[in-house]
Amino acid sequence: MLTLHSPLDMHVHLRQGDMLSLVAPHTARSFAAAVVMPNLTPPVTTTAQVREYRQAIIQAAGQPFTPLMTLFFREYSRAELEEARPHVIGVKLYPAGMTTNSEAGLADMDRAAPTLEIMEDLGLPLLVHGEGCGFVMDREAEFLPVVERWARAFPKLRIVLEHVTTAAGVALLDRRDNVFATVTLHHLLITLDDVIGGLMRPHLFCKPVAKRPEDRAALREAALNHPKAFFGSDTAPHPVSAKEAPGCAAGIFSAPVALPALAALFEELGALDRLQAFVSDRARAAYGFVPPDREVVLERREWTVPERLGPVVPYLGGQTLNWKVVG
Amino acid sequence: MLTLHSPLDMHVHLRQGDMLSLVAPHTARSFAAAVVMPNLTPPVTTTAQVREYRQAIIQAAGQPFTPLMTLFFREYSRAELEEARPHVIGVKLYPAGMTTNSEAGLADMDRAAPTLEIMEDLGLPLLVHGEGCGFVMDREAEFLPVVERWARAFPKLRIVLEHVTTAAGVALLDRRDNVFATVTLHHLLITLDDVIGGLMRPHLFCKPVAKRPEDRAALREAALNHPKAFFGSDTAPHPVSAKEAPGCAAGIFSAPVALPALAALFEELGALDRLQAFVSDRARAAYGFVPPDREVVLERREWTVPERLGPVVPYLGGQTLNWKVVG
Repeated sequence: MLTLHSPLDMHVHLRQGDMLSLVAPHTARSFAAAVVMPNLTPPVTTTAQVREYRQAIIQAAGQPFTPLMTLFFREYSRAELEEARPHVIGVKLYPAGMTTNSEAGLADMDRAAPTLEIMEDLGLPLLVHGEGCGFVMDREAEFLPVVERWARAFPKLRIVLEHVTTAAGVALLDRRDNVFATVTLHHLLITLDDVIGGLMRPHLFCKPVAKRPEDRAALREAALNHPKAFFGSDTAPHPVSAKEAPGCAAGIFSAPVALPALAALFEELGALDRLQAFVSDRARAAYGFVPPDREVVLERREWTVPERLGPVVPYLGGQTLNWKVVG
Repeated sequence: MLTLHSPLDMHVHLRQGDMLSLVAPHTARSFAAAVVMPNLTPPVTTTAQVREYRQAIIQAAGQPFTPLMTLFFREYSRAELEEARPHVIGVKLYPAGMTTNSEAGLADMDRAAPTLEIMEDLGLPLLVHGEGCGFVMDREAEFLPVVERWARAFPKLRIVLEHVTTAAGVALLDRRDNVFATVTLHHLLITLDDVIGGLMRPHLFCKPVAKRPEDRAALREAALNHPKAFFGSDTAPHPVSAKEAPGCAAGIFSAPVALPALAALFEELGALDRLQAFVSDRARAAYGFVPPDREVVLERREWTVPERLGPVVPYLGGQTLNWKVVG
């Protein structure tokens, strides 16, 4: 038996419409709250959109659950951000074209400064998809100097390097006080070998792509021990028709297995007692917020992950896990 | 108009049965001869199998075409290799489990020595899938010391590093006189970015996986200028059901586009006059053999590559090429 106090998923994609209805209950079942990414079509860039999307999520969740909303980064005025401030936990920046529905993202990183200055002033964190446009295995490393430049230029701006995948990314946490990172479940479990080392696995394809074994080792070390690294699943559902296709979309739907698989991993690493910090405490400290009170209980009980949930193949589908969310 | 004298594809997978019937004519149409890989189920390990497979290929080709047969590497006796010698151009070695139907390959590289000694003595070249079992991006580099050890231990054994993908692999050609390399079309055109940098592309998934831009640059330089680098397409058909699937098979079916796409690339690189060397002359020198006499003519004429050929999606399917094989 394992009781988690207000577990938080600090990075989720809940989509819209039917997909939202399908996936939101899975996140709501395991987490007291979750940071909801704004990369819809069109992206969420106004307070009105935030409020409308938030309502849709609460309705779809079907149980007590707090969506922590975000704005899609663009150049915002102070008035816009002041209006949004009470409704969002941060602003998510996508370099243009890097992942699903990020075509509207920022192409010129230097143009971010005026908006970042306002965010710093309002205490509004920056969440960043930290990848440049170079060779796929180098993209995160090549983007880190941009993050570091911002961190130095805006020392009170909290910056969260989302879904960190490299040892170099983890190392940045120690160089800049105001840089934090989310770590996904799947990047703790797989490397590029799992994706393309044997047969090619579209259901393990995500952005940023899984990296090298030594990168995964650094992520595991951070998940267990780094006070500025916390859980964000990047759960990202796509219908099977978009995965097993000539052009396979990037994203892994991990919401249904996130806590059980994390419990199994932390247990395997002899660190089950640190799971609470990873899935809740460190995120509270980083964002300086008090999450809604809720206990989530896991039991040591075998269950088999469904191979399909509607049109979506969940992560670890068909596999048997030895921890189960029971309440 | 471009006339190639006895173009050779020094690395093809022609499969068996219906697939053989489908693909063999495409190779036969463009090439005077081709080196046929022995990784069938079961692998080709006896002279009887070689002769039977050769007959099936000639029948499937439906036009004048010379299959250059290979044995699948195992520990062979001198008597076995003496019997096979008149029927094969070399012996192909697969480290166990590295690619399609290579489960029967060699697990312990040191056990190869006695057979390699006989091959050296009989003048029978070694063709090697040069990958170890480590992280997918490092496998070729990690296997090169094995190749180099063999090259030093058996200085008269000609060794062909098949489908070389890295700058490190190309560099080995300059260190050991008796090491040669085939270069595929697709490794001259794509990098890992094309496979997983945007959407994931199962039809560009192959083994060894495409590598970094600087590796591709080294391959292009070798294709244009290195006297020991020659063309081997590694054309490897899989039905679409095995490509657009939860576990996508490795292989690119390039036979229908090989010469036109090579002509376009060499032309783009200002080296059309070196295509003859790459697709024929250097291979003749490396293997010390005289290919059947045949001219293959390409014309500057636009054509669109079919999106499907039976159950197979050909490389560059749907794209328009500006060179066409006309006779």
